[in-house]
Amino acid sequence: MRPATFDAAMRLAIEQAERVKGATYPNPPVGAVILDSAGAVVGVGATEPTGGAHAEVVALRRAGELARGGTAVVTLEPCNHHGRTPPCVDGLLAAGVSRVVYAVADPNPVAAGGSSRLAQSGVAVQAGVLATEVAGGPLREWLHKQRTGLPHVTWKFATSVDGRSAAADGSSQWITSEAARADVHRRRSVVEAIVVGTGTVFFDDPTLTARLPDGSLADRQPLRVVVGEREISSEANVLNDDSHTMVIRTHDPHEVIRALSGRTAVLLEGGPTLAGAFLRAGVIDRILAYVAPILLGGPITAVDDVGVLSIAGAQRWRFDGIEAIGPDVRLSLVPN
Amino acid sequence: MRPATFDAAMRLAIEQAERVKGATYPNPPVGAVILDSAGAVVGVGATEPTGGAHAEVVALRRAGELARGGTAVVTLEPCNHHGRTPPCVDGLLAAGVSRVVYAVADPNPVAAGGSSRLAQSGVAVQAGVLATEVAGGPLREWLHKQRTGLPHVTWKFATSVDGRSAAADGSSQWITSEAARADVHRRRSVVEAIVVGTGTVFFDDPTLTARLPDGSLADRQPLRVVVGEREISSEANVLNDDSHTMVIRTHDPHEVIRALSGRTAVLLEGGPTLAGAFLRAGVIDRILAYVAPILLGGPITAVDDVGVLSIAGAQRWRFDGIEAIGPDVRLSLVPN
Repeated sequence: MRPATFDAAMRLAIEQAERVKGATYPNPPVGAVILDSAGAVVGVGATEPTGGAHAEVVALRRAGELARGGTAVVTLEPCNHHGRTPPCVDGLLAAGVSRVVYAVADPNPVAAGGSSRLAQSGVAVQAGVLATEVAGGPLREWLHKQRTGLPHVTWKFATSVDGRSAAADGSSQWITSEAARADVHRRRSVVEAIVVGTGTVFFDDPTLTARLPDGSLADRQPLRVVVGEREISSEANVLNDDSHTMVIRTHDPHEVIRALSGRTAVLLEGGPTLAGAFLRAGVIDRILAYVAPILLGGPITAVDDVGVLSIAGAQRWRFDGIEAIGPDVRLSLVPN
Repeated sequence: MRPATFDAAMRLAIEQAERVKGATYPNPPVGAVILDSAGAVVGVGATEPTGGAHAEVVALRRAGELARGGTAVVTLEPCNHHGRTPPCVDGLLAAGVSRVVYAVADPNPVAAGGSSRLAQSGVAVQAGVLATEVAGGPLREWLHKQRTGLPHVTWKFATSVDGRSAAADGSSQWITSEAARADVHRRRSVVEAIVVGTGTVFFDDPTLTARLPDGSLADRQPLRVVVGEREISSEANVLNDDSHTMVIRTHDPHEVIRALSGRTAVLLEGGPTLAGAFLRAGVIDRILAYVAPILLGGPITAVDDVGVLSIAGAQRWRFDGIEAIGPDVRLSLVPN
């Protein structure tokens, strides 16, 4: 079978994984595809919500007897431990697949070892297929959590092409397009917490919910986290019944991260003050800048003080994604 | 012959045209490709420097007898007038091509009519192939000049992802990468004038030359134009012998445009003050933002006052190009 087939199957597995992102934490969102011995897709699956079946098991169930002699293509190394479910390696061996292809090795010492057990059982194993795509895509947040023990923090901001978050008179609805806002709402629905400062609550009074394009609430709502020492009104939208809300009375980003240490994926939507504090503290793992094709000028910048005095001390990142979102551009940056 | 062949030939013609951009004004930079009767490329050409042969003639010369019964693929409608050279239509008819494919109709009433004369002479004519690519690419500036009588003004600026042109202490060398700077030097070599304000001369003392990657001067150097009422030092680099320099003692962008009305392509490299004045005056036809993956914060923004008070009055543009340039991103914007 040509490697191109494995790549195509892995892309399908990545799509499956992206569809369950957010619903599986603390389990990883994994996708799996079963190919029969001729290379045809006979089963696809993704991790079920927390406590449910793993992706391989779902895909094997769908493939049934057609899996025998075939190939399992999985975004993460199949697990080898008894958690709430039996090891996936057992399922793969019982199904009689002759080859397992995966993208990323399991960094969790408890779950790892799947690869070597498969190989010892006579299954051909190929690792690293589209590893970069998976590690930067569906598994990005989960891998970060495994590596650091801390939640992965994505800072999202909307800006004009000249770096402003509002016009001179403070008006800012809307800088970016409906398409960009829909993209943000989709991202809200796959994180476990959204963080803003009291300033944002005071000035914008956002609801901070994840909404579908028709305006209705998404199935999953992240925890809303308000950070700062200022009192917020009991009438604030962020305190409504659409989701839970946590108020953290601190200005220290490290304290915020610690308070959210049980989570895997956090979205920071704070204004310039809070974002600046997080940037200076070095606790942002990804930046998503939604850039609108407009110029505003004036005093209201999307970012204020990031702790840089001289060009030599600039916060240096790396673009890892540039994409048109409707009329806007989404720039993704990761630490350099 | 499949239309795909014409598309491919037109792309080749576009490449040819891009290679002579800047060298042909006031003539349009045109590219031409001759296909033989079987669809094989038998000649390529581009407009020779001002006063020289047109693209079709160059390409036909290279094709020789192989052009007979073939197809000429040209970025601009072949001309039908005696200027410094005889009409291209005559050359195409004499060469015996049986079909002419072009992208953009000639807006110049003196030169136009080529298409209908070809058709009347029994040549099959197809217009509009990759017209958008040509009109937004090699012919952008020339078409603008034909339409408006004014030079096309591109404003280029370098910025951090948060809209800063320098760190808080004023240091700014270099925000963008060597790759981005090389791209700017290439663009300088294909315009006829570079415009800066006296402020830029005072603070940065640039030479404003077009240089090759090895640091040597490019063959073509644009006129250097310094705008403003402040006196500049006779020792300023912009006054050195590498190119000519024009000093215009005004703050009015319209006056600057008028002083350059004989030119076709102008590059504005001014700082926030001059760029703001041009933006407010509505005389910028394209924006090229070179965005570096760094954050600077602080008070020195790449753009200051663009005459916008409220979000409803935002300067609304449209992205027509998003491209990675080395580690940076180049955003191209055109009026909405």
